Amino acid sequence: MQLGLIGLGRMGGNMRDRLRAAGHEVVGYDPRPEVSDVASLADLAGALSAPRVVWVMVPSGEPTRGAVRALRDVLDTGDLVIDGGNSRYTDDAPNAALLDEKGIGYLDVGVSGGIWGKANGYGLMAGGSAEHVERAMPIFDALRPEGPREEGFVHAGPVGAGHFSKMVHNGIEYGLMQAYAEGFELLSAAELVTDVPGVLQAWSRGTVVRSWLLDLLVDALQQDPGLAKLDDYVEDSGEGRWTIEEAIQHAVPLPVISAALFARFASRQDSSPAMRAVAALRQQFGGHAVRTATGPTGTPGEHAGPTSGTGSTQN
Amino acid sequence: MQLGLIGLGRMGGNMRDRLRAAGHEVVGYDPRPEVSDVASLADLAGALSAPRVVWVMVPSGEPTRGAVRALRDVLDTGDLVIDGGNSRYTDDAPNAALLDEKGIGYLDVGVSGGIWGKANGYGLMAGGSAEHVERAMPIFDALRPEGPREEGFVHAGPVGAGHFSKMVHNGIEYGLMQAYAEGFELLSAAELVTDVPGVLQAWSRGTVVRSWLLDLLVDALQQDPGLAKLDDYVEDSGEGRWTIEEAIQHAVPLPVISAALFARFASRQDSSPAMRAVAALRQQFGGHAVRTATGPTGTPGEHAGPTSGTGSTQN
Amino acid sequence: MQLGLIGLGRMGGNMRDRLRAAGHEVVGYDPRPEVSDVASLADLAGALSAPRVVWVMVPSGEPTRGAVRALRDVLDTGDLVIDGGNSRYTDDAPNAALLDEKGIGYLDVGVSGGIWGKANGYGLMAGGSAEHVERAMPIFDALRPEGPREEGFVHAGPVGAGHFSKMVHNGIEYGLMQAYAEGFELLSAAELVTDVPGVLQAWSRGTVVRSWLLDLLVDALQQDPGLAKLDDYVEDSGEGRWTIEEAIQHAVPLPVISAALFARFASRQDSSPAMRAVAALRQQFGGHAVRTATGPTGTPGEHAGPTSGTGSTQN
Amino acid sequence: MQLGLIGLGRMGGNMRDRLRAAGHEVVGYDPRPEVSDVASLADLAGALSAPRVVWVMVPSGEPTRGAVRALRDVLDTGDLVIDGGNSRYTDDAPNAALLDEKGIGYLDVGVSGGIWGKANGYGLMAGGSAEHVERAMPIFDALRPEGPREEGFVHAGPVGAGHFSKMVHNGIEYGLMQAYAEGFELLSAAELVTDVPGVLQAWSRGTVVRSWLLDLLVDALQQDPGLAKLDDYVEDSGEGRWTIEEAIQHAVPLPVISAALFARFASRQDSSPAMRAVAALRQQFGGHAVRTATGPTGTPGEHAGPTSGTGSTQN
Repeated sequence: MQLGLIGLGRMGGNMRDRLRAAGHEVVGYDPRPEVSDVASLADLAGALSAPRVVWVMVPSGEPTRGAVRALRDVLDTGDLVIDGGNSRYTDDAPNAALLDEKGIGYLDVGVSGGIWGKANGYGLMAGGSAEHVERAMPIFDALRPEGPREEGFVHAGPVGAGHFSKMVHNGIEYGLMQAYAEGFELLSAAELVTDVPGVLQAWSRGTVVRSWLLDLLVDALQQDPGLAKLDDYVEDSGEGRWTIEEAIQHAVPLPVISAALFARFASRQDSSPAMRAVAALRQQFGGHAVRTATGPTGTPGEHAGPTSGTGSTQN
Repeated sequence: MQLGLIGLGRMGGNMRDRLRAAGHEVVGYDPRPEVSDVASLADLAGALSAPRVVWVMVPSGEPTRGAVRALRDVLDTGDLVIDGGNSRYTDDAPNAALLDEKGIGYLDVGVSGGIWGKANGYGLMAGGSAEHVERAMPIFDALRPEGPREEGFVHAGPVGAGHFSKMVHNGIEYGLMQAYAEGFELLSAAELVTDVPGVLQAWSRGTVVRSWLLDLLVDALQQDPGLAKLDDYVEDSGEGRWTIEEAIQHAVPLPVISAALFARFASRQDSSPAMRAVAALRQQFGGHAVRTATGPTGTPGEHAGPTSGTGSTQN
Repeated sequence: MQLGLIGLGRMGGNMRDRLRAAGHEVVGYDPRPEVSDVASLADLAGALSAPRVVWVMVPSGEPTRGAVRALRDVLDTGDLVIDGGNSRYTDDAPNAALLDEKGIGYLDVGVSGGIWGKANGYGLMAGGSAEHVERAMPIFDALRPEGPREEGFVHAGPVGAGHFSKMVHNGIEYGLMQAYAEGFELLSAAELVTDVPGVLQAWSRGTVVRSWLLDLLVDALQQDPGLAKLDDYVEDSGEGRWTIEEAIQHAVPLPVISAALFARFASRQDSSPAMRAVAALRQQFGGHAVRTATGPTGTPGEHAGPTSGTGSTQN
Repeated sequence: MQLGLIGLGRMGGNMRDRLRAAGHEVVGYDPRPEVSDVASLADLAGALSAPRVVWVMVPSGEPTRGAVRALRDVLDTGDLVIDGGNSRYTDDAPNAALLDEKGIGYLDVGVSGGIWGKANGYGLMAGGSAEHVERAMPIFDALRPEGPREEGFVHAGPVGAGHFSKMVHNGIEYGLMQAYAEGFELLSAAELVTDVPGVLQAWSRGTVVRSWLLDLLVDALQQDPGLAKLDDYVEDSGEGRWTIEEAIQHAVPLPVISAALFARFASRQDSSPAMRAVAALRQQFGGHAVRTATGPTGTPGEHAGPTSGTGSTQN
């Protein structure tokens, strides 16, 4: 079928390729002329036969809202817009309302798979009406992995349910990544295991912890066994934060996902004000040697850990 | 090859089946005569040609130590004992030393796969000398999943490294399980998603969070979509505790794995003394309504959450 | 000086008493005629000489917003409104803007002290202009504890800074309470200490952990040594949630305060969906005995903890 | 009364001063002749009249065990040894047994108060027999703060209960410190509050969070308002670790105290292997820009946080 596709970055570009390979006719638009199929959104609308289906794949927040507004102007009653970006689910109802003013339909679709989706297919979670989902199904079938439809696609609920599901997916992802990472660190720290990358690789089949993320970590360790070439600086892309905020809204305890998010926050700090405050307290009550910003004030031995305590550092 | 196998419970029994299916000759011993191949450990030793290899698959701690001691008595110099149980890695060096007194070799092997291992193969992590690993390799090859050896087996290091790896594997497992569980709870609590089991199933292919544990959760949800038939009471089998203790030893922060362990501890409490103490404090400083062990003391509205606060409950 | 006071619940009523005891003239309004000094807000405005100062002490959110709107109608240019309730700091700028339309000033004041404030004084954190703070200072001086002004009062910054400070105060409070509570539980669980209430009482002087919250816990334990009369059900009043949301906004890791908040969430669950999911996973991969909603399926011994594991429950 | 005192470091020296000021006769021994009252333990024993009481105030572990052994040699039946150091409670029974071989009594006493104890008195938690506690009471009364005995001293239980109580005290202390530190960081990060030290100082009286630790933090902030002179490197002295290990032993969830301990561990890492692993995973699945050990590989904008995401970094 025909599809308009707005946003031809790494994800959008890959999706265009996968859809075309499946025999669909994709008209892509991107502000960068070198990758765009048409010169404008108006041209995109003109290149598609009504009723049109247009997939938006641009950054969440204002860029997506802007695309929705622009599409409202160039599309017509009966057309359908799909937001496949990483939008916060609370953006979906307003987006749908904007389009509904002109009789244009709306679906929100969470998309997972990263750069591997082009080859493997993308996991898809859709929110909206059954009628709209049905209309876009050929696109979903082309984007999702091979196999039973229900193992790579779900109609999760009404508008917003797709992005909500994707948000939770990413929250879980934070927890999974941190769990593997903690295990990797402990294996490395103990120095009893002489082949840490080999241990992780041996978990690839048969074990309880086997997963695609584990496979990726095995790949990374084969390229750089101690991960020494990487900085311990980890971004977060918003969904983890939204997950915690949503949990707070519903009084759901998320100790693991929040710990994973906070570990990322901490990873980006050059100096932690909180830990400076703890150091200050130890200095105040115990006369404990602390490190100043320019170096230790105490004797080296006093930093060597809990076994090196002396009677003088008691609290 | 020939193998003695001590302990024919669910794991040991399955392993005997899998080894025999692969053409190995297994002589199994278990105190329950109805499953045992021989009447005693002496008979087991007698049924095997030297140099013997005997796999111990009994509960960790005293039962395993007892089996090692008993094997020392019935085996000879040049034989090899493999502890495939869930022993703490700190038990391995003493076990090896016990056997070494008589010139008997020792390997510790972490085994993962649960009841699925019989069909799928088990992930194996071995600790000990290269020579001993080499001697037992036909057994390892039969037990591990099909595919490249290094994806289901590793020689992790010296004696202890196998069980250490398995311990960390299980620590990671705790974190992974809790991450999925938290996501499941949030999806369920928000009530926007109308098909929670469907969302998890749609993550089975293509997504970043796909894994074997996810597949199992999908299976469980197909049998009982709200998991309403289960109690929220979760055991722990020791490895998670050991993982945290080991992390403390090495000053490795494990916020996610510890949170997962503590969630299990909390799940088993009928009443949390800590939370009673928090309730007591709120009552003391704020005159907050609290629930007594027999029911609320305040008006019902005062329990309805943060939006129901009144000027009178301020602190 | 003269003060109008809206909201005569536990906090407002106590504050009226303390202010009058300090010689101030307080005109209180409450919808409950039996506690109110005047019949309406219009009467309250009429009873005060311009420029008026009116303190609002009602529940946060819509009640406070409603009071601010109503005061805008009955007050005049040059008057001053103080929100002393537990408002979210993001409500302050809109409240101030509403009043500014008519030339009425605004201060937000975080108030801590609970029911003890009437006797001991309240800790106060004010946000707004220096001029407004100065005008209300006699009221602040009467409400705050005796001693140096800066030990019970602060002009924390512009509008919003008072409630922001109070929000963080309460977030810290959650962490402190949980820390004591965890210690209490561990002391009780270990059964080595034969006088747990006595240990906490002995921390009252000289120790690093001495505090007012500790004193309150000692009081509670003297009334009920095991806190057996209380349910382990703990409300939260919103500020803890806001604290975490604010931390997420600023990428500040708050592992302790979030853990304290989540412990409260968990305390209110009859059955944790997350822990049912973990139980389901254990059942799936390991054939572990689990408890169903109506009772255990396994043998009793299989619930007895990590030392009771058998070879058959291995993963 | 007469007291032998072994270990004249900061704590022991201060305690000698405080005891002498209270009129007790203290014979101190330290390997450093410039602070020692006697030349050897034998001289110390000789200088005291039987039945002797000797207080040991040396580093925990081997130094304390060594002092106990040495005292067994120079003391006699009926004498009493008090370990006032920061020993792990599991050391107490062996120490008591060593001394009991010769009929020498033993008390373990947890001591809190740091360098302030000399002036303010020390909080004391004793473990051992009532008879031994009674004999040493004049010493306890001199060391503890003024006020009711039970507010600065407790006979917590049998041998070990004193150090157990002190261990839990310190675990709580970790949680309290981290709670204040997190609040300090959030106040600082938000930039709405213009006087962060002033806010903490205003909590000194009347508020729910007032405490001695808060007073110390206020002092530290008056010397260095942003704590900019300190490094964010925080030692731990063992008791926090023991607290978590003990909690694991008893299946007690300690989310706050463990989070505080792990924050200290993390504060001491130059580069976190776990966070490098998370960064590696993000790079693998999403083609996310990461920082290498020598600098960012992506464009600066890609590090600016969740709002700067682009369609190309989707997972």
